[in-house]
Amino acid sequence: MNYPSGVKKNTNSKRKSKQINYTNRGMTLEDDINITNEYYLNNNLAIIHKKPTPVQIVNVHYPKRSAAVITEAYFKQASTTDYNGIYRQKYIDFEAKETTNTTSFPFSNIHEHQINHMQHILSHGGIAFFIIKFTQFDETYLLDANILIHNWYKQFEGYRKSMSYKDIAKKGHLIPFKYTARIHYLPIIDEIYF
Amino acid sequence: MNYPSGVKKNTNSKRKSKQINYTNRGMTLEDDINITNEYYLNNNLAIIHKKPTPVQIVNVHYPKRSAAVITEAYFKQASTTDYNGIYRQKYIDFEAKETTNTTSFPFSNIHEHQINHMQHILSHGGIAFFIIKFTQFDETYLLDANILIHNWYKQFEGYRKSMSYKDIAKKGHLIPFKYTARIHYLPIIDEIYF
Repeated sequence: MNYPSGVKKNTNSKRKSKQINYTNRGMTLEDDINITNEYYLNNNLAIIHKKPTPVQIVNVHYPKRSAAVITEAYFKQASTTDYNGIYRQKYIDFEAKETTNTTSFPFSNIHEHQINHMQHILSHGGIAFFIIKFTQFDETYLLDANILIHNWYKQFEGYRKSMSYKDIAKKGHLIPFKYTARIHYLPIIDEIYF
Repeated sequence: MNYPSGVKKNTNSKRKSKQINYTNRGMTLEDDINITNEYYLNNNLAIIHKKPTPVQIVNVHYPKRSAAVITEAYFKQASTTDYNGIYRQKYIDFEAKETTNTTSFPFSNIHEHQINHMQHILSHGGIAFFIIKFTQFDETYLLDANILIHNWYKQFEGYRKSMSYKDIAKKGHLIPFKYTARIHYLPIIDEIYF
C-alpha cells in the first residue's frame, strides 16, 4: 500500500488495504477517517477501527479450487456506531456522517439505536462523539455525544428535528486537515476529554 | 425476541435479533457468547458486541420496490478480533475459538494480525483475552492474552505450535455456565483485571 511520506509502515502488520489515491480530493468522509485511523495505528497513537458493514448472508456458493462466493445477501441495520477502539487507555466510540445540507444537520441521519448505544457507552465511562462533515463547506466537526443526544431528544418535545450548522460550528470543534491524518481528531479529544 | 425468564427487556432498545432457541444444547460458542453479551447489555453490566463478518461486496442488485440484494461478495480476513466493548470503564477486546482437539489448542486457529492487534490493545491499557472452548469436554476457558501471545511467539524458537489442554486448564480460568449468561465471563474479568 502507498504510505504518505514520513509514515513508517508497521512491519508487524500484515493487514491488506485497498490502493488509495491520496491526492484525490473527492474522497468520502469514511475514506478520510480510515486513512487517519491507519496513520494513528501505524504510529501507535490510537487503535480505532471501522466495523464492517453488517450483512445477512443467505446463500454461499463453494466452487472447487476457488474462494467461496456469497451469491445472496442483504444489508442489515447496524446495532452500534461505526467506529470504536482505544486511546490513552480510554474506550472511544463514534459515528461519522456527512451532509450536503448547508444550514443544518438533520437527525434523520442518526438512528435511535445509535443514540441508545451512545448513552450506554457514556454511562460506562467511555468517550463518545459524532464527526459531522458539511461537504459544501468542506468543514468537519467533532461534536460531543451528550450535546447531540440532548438536542435529539428535544425533537419529541416539539423542537427542531435537526441541529443548525451555526450551533454545530459553535458547540462542536472544527477538525483540522493534515496530509497524513486527514481528519485529525485526536488533538481535539485531548482538549475536550483529558 | 424470547428473553430467558427473569431477564428484563431494555425498552429503549430496538435492536432486532434472530429467534434463538435457548434449550438447544448444540449451539456454537459464538451463539452462547452473543446471548451472554445480550444479557449483559440488557442488564447494563457491559457493552460488548461482536463485529460483523467482513465481506468484500462486488455486485449489488437494486430491484424496484424491494431491498437491495448483494449478488456477489467474498469473505475477507478480519483485521482485528471478533469482540470488543467497554466494562467498568475499561476497553475490552477478545477472540473466541472452539476446538474439537482434546489434548491441545493449535495456534493455527489464531492469525498473526490478531496477535499484533492484541499486543497493540495491551500496550494502550486495554484488557485482552481469549475464550477457548474444548467442545469434547464442554469446557470453556478465559485465557489472558499475554499468556497466549508469549506461547505463540515461542513456536518460532522451535517450541510447540499449540498450547496443551493441561496448560490452558491451569493458566486459564474455567468459565461457568449460567442459563442467562451461558459464557459468564465478567466475574473472571473482575477477578483477574480489577
